Amino acid sequence: MNQAIGVIDSGVGGLTVAHELIRQLPKERLIYLGDTQRCPYGPRSNEEVKKFTWEMVEFLVRKNIKMLVVACNTATAFTLNELKDCLPIPVIGVIKPGARAAINETKNNHIGVIGTEGTISSNAYVTALKDINADLHVQSLACPLFVPMVEHGCLSGEYAESVVSNSLFPLKQQQDLDTLILGCTHYPLIKNTIQQTIGENVSIISSSKETAREASAILGFNDLLYKGDETPIHQFYSTGEMEVFTRITKGIFKEFIDYFDSVTIEKAVLR
Amino acid sequence: MNQAIGVIDSGVGGLTVAHELIRQLPKERLIYLGDTQRCPYGPRSNEEVKKFTWEMVEFLVRKNIKMLVVACNTATAFTLNELKDCLPIPVIGVIKPGARAAINETKNNHIGVIGTEGTISSNAYVTALKDINADLHVQSLACPLFVPMVEHGCLSGEYAESVVSNSLFPLKQQQDLDTLILGCTHYPLIKNTIQQTIGENVSIISSSKETAREASAILGFNDLLYKGDETPIHQFYSTGEMEVFTRITKGIFKEFIDYFDSVTIEKAVLR
Repeated sequence: MNQAIGVIDSGVGGLTVAHELIRQLPKERLIYLGDTQRCPYGPRSNEEVKKFTWEMVEFLVRKNIKMLVVACNTATAFTLNELKDCLPIPVIGVIKPGARAAINETKNNHIGVIGTEGTISSNAYVTALKDINADLHVQSLACPLFVPMVEHGCLSGEYAESVVSNSLFPLKQQQDLDTLILGCTHYPLIKNTIQQTIGENVSIISSSKETAREASAILGFNDLLYKGDETPIHQFYSTGEMEVFTRITKGIFKEFIDYFDSVTIEKAVLR
Repeated sequence: MNQAIGVIDSGVGGLTVAHELIRQLPKERLIYLGDTQRCPYGPRSNEEVKKFTWEMVEFLVRKNIKMLVVACNTATAFTLNELKDCLPIPVIGVIKPGARAAINETKNNHIGVIGTEGTISSNAYVTALKDINADLHVQSLACPLFVPMVEHGCLSGEYAESVVSNSLFPLKQQQDLDTLILGCTHYPLIKNTIQQTIGENVSIISSSKETAREASAILGFNDLLYKGDETPIHQFYSTGEMEVFTRITKGIFKEFIDYFDSVTIEKAVLR
């Protein structure tokens, strides 16, 4: 039996992590749970985020997952350490993989981070970066308009370019910046527009890609990679309205031909 | 006390891994051991490589290392699983990190691998790549002239360009290739020449950089990162002739100003 990797997110942003997990680990089976009913987690209290996260985790643990990926920056910031301490399976978040990839990539130690207001004010990326190298120059910037824009399906074109360009203006003033972390799992969907605005000389790090890469490394290190030949059937669950969730899921996974033969999309009831 | 990361190699190639470990994990202390006296390991038997590798490991284990990095492709291919099973500390090799980084990087699943004759004929990279994704197109090529050229200090210029260009000719015919793994720890020293030959459209993956990145991830996952403020003093050991080893070490680390205030370079006696 191909034990699944569990992925939790406050909504649809974590689907970019799921997409990368399927791309980089095509033999692995995924169970994704998006708490779309109670999304966004950003403005909620620490206690509420913890409570909701644990409810999602219990739903997945009952499905016998072999690894948990917390694909939500807010949930990672508030609950990752507790989850790591309490669960008997490997648990990884989205913040440290992005930080480590940026440290790997930068040539001059000048790193930018963009994310939601919650993530940026939590300072989680700055802490993760400076814990490893105190000499890094880190410039953080909240881009509160990006998530609503992406959730409305606006990923490119004139309006997207103008929002991205105006939002990133403070970072474009930083001549030395050579690496930029997309510190929100929604942002890989507008990566091209961000790259165009910030310039080709800045390397863009997607937390989603890098989290999938580290999931691969941690599964390999713990000898947990699936070695059989079964074609995985992925399961996607949403706690809220199914139509939007299904549309966004199909949009994100559109390049996988025949993908939806091997996927189920269902409503999850947590309590 | 800042417990060190131990790095073993058959000679000087692993110094590129050590360099990346110090760059990406500047708080960590390193003990490097190069078996320059018995280098190269490539033409040796499986049993001999295992015996020599265990002698190096015992030297480092007596120095109470917290992690072992096997920075030699041959030693990784022959001993990694055994070392992982027997040692109570995390052990990582150079092959899987490069494979995972290439899978992360490629857009069209066409990956090239270059290495020594031993590494290429062992098929270790092809196996590591296909174990994760059986649908990858992998093109391997042995470049036996690169290591002796690098060890003679020839890293760029007309001769290096001609050797690299002639060696890579078969890969340059592969129109679809979008990612190339440097499957030998010497090759990052001629990365610029390789990039120039293979073209800017091919992403080059350095096993050395990616091994350091995964060492960072595995240390973080196991809560083994150093949290103190002591400046690390690195130790470099060679089993053979010290003059060449010292010259190459200084050459590889030359951009670290004041670096040699915090380094010792000594002869190691294994038996």
